[in-house]
Amino acid sequence: MSTQARMKAVQYRSVGAAPEVVTIARPEPGPGQVLLKVTAAGVCHSDIAVMSLPAEALAFPLPLTLGHEGAGTVAALGDGVTGFEVGESVAVYGPWGCGNCLMCAQGKENLCPRAAELGIRPPGLGAPGAIAEYLLVDDPRHLVPLGDLDPVTAVPLTDAGLTPYHAIKTSQPKLTPGSTAVVIGTGGLGHVAIQLLRALTPARVIALDVSEDKLALAREVGAHETVLSDRNAAATVRELTGGLGAQAVFDFVGAPPTVTTATACAAVEADVTIVGIGGGAALVGFGTTPYDAAVRAPYWGSRAELIEVLDLARAGAVDVHVETYSLDDAPKAYERLHHGLIKGRAVILPNG
Amino acid sequence: MSTQARMKAVQYRSVGAAPEVVTIARPEPGPGQVLLKVTAAGVCHSDIAVMSLPAEALAFPLPLTLGHEGAGTVAALGDGVTGFEVGESVAVYGPWGCGNCLMCAQGKENLCPRAAELGIRPPGLGAPGAIAEYLLVDDPRHLVPLGDLDPVTAVPLTDAGLTPYHAIKTSQPKLTPGSTAVVIGTGGLGHVAIQLLRALTPARVIALDVSEDKLALAREVGAHETVLSDRNAAATVRELTGGLGAQAVFDFVGAPPTVTTATACAAVEADVTIVGIGGGAALVGFGTTPYDAAVRAPYWGSRAELIEVLDLARAGAVDVHVETYSLDDAPKAYERLHHGLIKGRAVILPNG
Amino acid sequence: MSTQARMKAVQYRSVGAAPEVVTIARPEPGPGQVLLKVTAAGVCHSDIAVMSLPAEALAFPLPLTLGHEGAGTVAALGDGVTGFEVGESVAVYGPWGCGNCLMCAQGKENLCPRAAELGIRPPGLGAPGAIAEYLLVDDPRHLVPLGDLDPVTAVPLTDAGLTPYHAIKTSQPKLTPGSTAVVIGTGGLGHVAIQLLRALTPARVIALDVSEDKLALAREVGAHETVLSDRNAAATVRELTGGLGAQAVFDFVGAPPTVTTATACAAVEADVTIVGIGGGAALVGFGTTPYDAAVRAPYWGSRAELIEVLDLARAGAVDVHVETYSLDDAPKAYERLHHGLIKGRAVILPNG
Amino acid sequence: MSTQARMKAVQYRSVGAAPEVVTIARPEPGPGQVLLKVTAAGVCHSDIAVMSLPAEALAFPLPLTLGHEGAGTVAALGDGVTGFEVGESVAVYGPWGCGNCLMCAQGKENLCPRAAELGIRPPGLGAPGAIAEYLLVDDPRHLVPLGDLDPVTAVPLTDAGLTPYHAIKTSQPKLTPGSTAVVIGTGGLGHVAIQLLRALTPARVIALDVSEDKLALAREVGAHETVLSDRNAAATVRELTGGLGAQAVFDFVGAPPTVTTATACAAVEADVTIVGIGGGAALVGFGTTPYDAAVRAPYWGSRAELIEVLDLARAGAVDVHVETYSLDDAPKAYERLHHGLIKGRAVILPNG
Repeated sequence: MSTQARMKAVQYRSVGAAPEVVTIARPEPGPGQVLLKVTAAGVCHSDIAVMSLPAEALAFPLPLTLGHEGAGTVAALGDGVTGFEVGESVAVYGPWGCGNCLMCAQGKENLCPRAAELGIRPPGLGAPGAIAEYLLVDDPRHLVPLGDLDPVTAVPLTDAGLTPYHAIKTSQPKLTPGSTAVVIGTGGLGHVAIQLLRALTPARVIALDVSEDKLALAREVGAHETVLSDRNAAATVRELTGGLGAQAVFDFVGAPPTVTTATACAAVEADVTIVGIGGGAALVGFGTTPYDAAVRAPYWGSRAELIEVLDLARAGAVDVHVETYSLDDAPKAYERLHHGLIKGRAVILPNG
Repeated sequence: MSTQARMKAVQYRSVGAAPEVVTIARPEPGPGQVLLKVTAAGVCHSDIAVMSLPAEALAFPLPLTLGHEGAGTVAALGDGVTGFEVGESVAVYGPWGCGNCLMCAQGKENLCPRAAELGIRPPGLGAPGAIAEYLLVDDPRHLVPLGDLDPVTAVPLTDAGLTPYHAIKTSQPKLTPGSTAVVIGTGGLGHVAIQLLRALTPARVIALDVSEDKLALAREVGAHETVLSDRNAAATVRELTGGLGAQAVFDFVGAPPTVTTATACAAVEADVTIVGIGGGAALVGFGTTPYDAAVRAPYWGSRAELIEVLDLARAGAVDVHVETYSLDDAPKAYERLHHGLIKGRAVILPNG
Repeated sequence: MSTQARMKAVQYRSVGAAPEVVTIARPEPGPGQVLLKVTAAGVCHSDIAVMSLPAEALAFPLPLTLGHEGAGTVAALGDGVTGFEVGESVAVYGPWGCGNCLMCAQGKENLCPRAAELGIRPPGLGAPGAIAEYLLVDDPRHLVPLGDLDPVTAVPLTDAGLTPYHAIKTSQPKLTPGSTAVVIGTGGLGHVAIQLLRALTPARVIALDVSEDKLALAREVGAHETVLSDRNAAATVRELTGGLGAQAVFDFVGAPPTVTTATACAAVEADVTIVGIGGGAALVGFGTTPYDAAVRAPYWGSRAELIEVLDLARAGAVDVHVETYSLDDAPKAYERLHHGLIKGRAVILPNG
Repeated sequence: MSTQARMKAVQYRSVGAAPEVVTIARPEPGPGQVLLKVTAAGVCHSDIAVMSLPAEALAFPLPLTLGHEGAGTVAALGDGVTGFEVGESVAVYGPWGCGNCLMCAQGKENLCPRAAELGIRPPGLGAPGAIAEYLLVDDPRHLVPLGDLDPVTAVPLTDAGLTPYHAIKTSQPKLTPGSTAVVIGTGGLGHVAIQLLRALTPARVIALDVSEDKLALAREVGAHETVLSDRNAAATVRELTGGLGAQAVFDFVGAPPTVTTATACAAVEADVTIVGIGGGAALVGFGTTPYDAAVRAPYWGSRAELIEVLDLARAGAVDVHVETYSLDDAPKAYERLHHGLIKGRAVILPNG
């Protein structure tokens, strides 16, 4: 590999522009770094959210190679890297942190309070991303071996699996037998969340979405009950739970009406988790929310949680529906996602 | 004791009226009940909140004997009661529940979802309260032996101690060495909270209040730092914590400006607990609150927590400042409380 | 009902004697007590253990009405009892405690440190038990509504379900995706434990027992792998887990060879729970057990856990295999149990 | 720095020999590594345990540079290292793991199940240790900034602080108000443990040791009660706790008689932690140990716990008594330790 080597990548090049297939220099791994030949890269709503930001809200310079869900085979190891071998199939842990603070020391790099000030950003969300022929990973600690797992169906688990897994794991102690979990939004993350809830807890799962079509998918992947997500939804959930409400509510939409539904569904001592980035915010206070109901908005998950969610896939407990695209068709995948036409998750195969 | 026996009590008799000393029938314990001769009863802001409600918002009929913080000596045991003896000094666990649901089975009667529908209400907040010569307790499970503890300084712990204890115990895992706890409002509950934080955690305690006078008390009872509670308070807390914010924030005011300060002080993965019933509600969402910061509004505490907070007092770790009043002077105590003139907690001695 | 009323009961009358059907006075509920007409009562190995004790080791006087797993319909309520109605179908929480200590205040009456000194004993293990036409329950807090659950298959859950449920719930945080749980002994408790593990955790379940016959049942109820319980068993478990061992081991035999196997199966930071009362004890120390592996021997479970395990049955997640007997045939059931001839659990129908 | 550079180090060179001051090649940091100029290095009983092993029990080749407690200033950064600067004062996290497994991903490298097979060993316990002028650290994740902390009193915290901190943190939920913690052995680790218990919990601390002299130190650093550690010690603890026993017992001796005392002191649901490596093992089983008492033997602590214990020192809550020695006098320090003459902890100043 020489510095002259080139590769194809999909980039967001200027504010407001559509993603574009370009040819750029292929990176080389410096000391402590790892170069991956990308096998699969996921396309995510949050990329579209980033591409909708005005210039002044963008936290990093353009152009940006897209893709924060990545999997690949190890192409080259930088000096001093141990623990991985060339050719090994791996997934990338995306929310890179400083590696040394109290959060990072627990592998909760998604909560690193120093990353921003140090200019550390996830691949595809500031650092060059995975929708390219090659991806440079800053440290082998950000890799998880895939073994025999199919990278194409596994790659969405690095975000669309890890994010709900983190939320659900936090609420696991609340989800005892006899409890109810509500999932609002049964798309990319939500349809994984339903499967995770079934695999990890004995809770009854009630899924909410805006169309019968989506509710059918929810039932297919394991929801016990489905409810149309309208202004009566919370009342229906309360009825289905004998007036008590749900012990955990996961809102994968996060828009103003859904967060209102989310807290209105909650039981005493419930966890309400706003995962979606739809701009909603819940009101929490004495007399406003049930006693001791905790409302939070998490971000991605920890390194250990990624290992665990991949182990769950290995056990056959999670099945992500994917549509695959070549790298050249990645812009089309973004367009279809933007128009709500992707069922499950779009995955790009840059070397496929 | 005959049904003719009479006793003095302090009652809220009609909407909008001031509390009044009256003479009423002295209760007798039925099967399974316990009659206490009251040694001490606390006066609380929430009584004033109840007395400010319009008729239609009142969840129970008047007249109401006031007092939800009670201590006494056992005067008589109803048929079938075991485990207590006449003459024994006890404190009353106030948030009575049904005793049989999943919450009550864990002693978390404060979270009983069936109490309201069954017409079960705490003494002084629906059932006849403790500001009377005698108090009827529905079940011996609602009693905790005081032993040698002085009932006068112990009685406020049944609410002004138990409520912050529950909040702090919930957040104990967050309050590791190097962490910061913020206490907003250093009055009745807040000045106990500061002591509890010092006894239970290695966290640095920052106290916020609106006057230097109150902040002096905060320092006296153990706050490491004090900050005037104005619109710059959150920025100051953030400065004092190297930009990170506090791992736990306890708002004992709960008014609109303090809940805004509370969430603005919070670190990533913090607990923000709105204890005060000042009508505020916090906005929680992605981009609004720090990642994984959980916001909740609890209510009182569990039976086990009351045992624990009394054990803490037994060990000398909590010192509640009290002003004592005779039963006849109880209306005056309410008036002084209403005007913010009580330092610490007002305690009525109905048989003193 | 008068004091002259009589009923049939199965009693252990003198040390070393076989259980006997006798006619005794039917109890009447005093204040705060509840009388049940027994619908079903379980027969348990620990009864046989008690009947094998020499006189000096027996902690209570004879005769003893047997049966610590009980279900019934409410026949009469003592004075002052609320929350239950005559005719209601209920299960009995067996490990009665004082009701007031720190453990009981959390519903962990199984761990009440005061019960013994106060002479409080479980029905069938000191107090008159459930293998009788009527059972006196000391307090309504020891009842859990059964609703539509069949008392015959539900009654074993009060011990054979609750005991493994408590053990498994304690270890739930260890049983993440990718983890392994080992169940030693797949009889009465063990075959329920396998089902509970499958319903509550994503762990791979490896069952150990001494015959292929019993291992076939283990697979039938959900074990992923089965291993003959001999001196190579731990090595096989270690092989099946890539050398790591199991994150949780539940020993429902508790004999010297099985506890040795149990700790030898354990991974670093595992939980090893010795549930069986087969007289074994594990050696735990630095260099003896894996780092941070915790070994414990629990006893029954909490009130909340009984509610939860019954909810799990309600959801269809636990299926106890039972053989039913009339009250007159109860001695025969004990004999068959003694000879290892019961498959699953024997249940007596005293009024059936 | 050239490969010709030399440095002094204290080595264990052949089985059974005394430690020796030698001159060896000064290491240079490869890519991803960090070279420290050692400011302070602790001398520990476990070094003596290692030097007592027969050749066949030794898990690594000799000679071995001793010292698994190390602090230093950054002398040189290998290629690719970020996050630290030359001259910065740091402490070394000793229990190095693979960095990638589920345990390491949580920073619990002390529990890495792959380290041994990969030949990864802690400095001073297989890798070249800290009792030398320079120490090579394999990865910056094994460094924690000391800031203004005095390296001389802070260095023992990397083991003699971290090890009890990990044990106590595990048991923190058990150590509620009213609870009791027993510390057996009040030497290097034990006298730190007493301080940690006082800073982190409201528990009453009872210290056990074999001489009044040591018990005086225990009281000085915060023990509420002290008891001579003889065969009556457990009975005395039980008496002091109203018959209940202690909710947590920490045995820093770990010899056969102390582990017997440890379990005999335990309350129902207690944690018994055998930290000392004195060759004892506790018997755990039904009827042998109190219900649900968990017995374990941990090893060192996690990365996050080291950050936390250093933060506790920063807050002034831990004060380790140290005796300092030059590098040339290190063999004398080992001799004094071997003869029980060190009070607190011996610290070598290799560049002092």
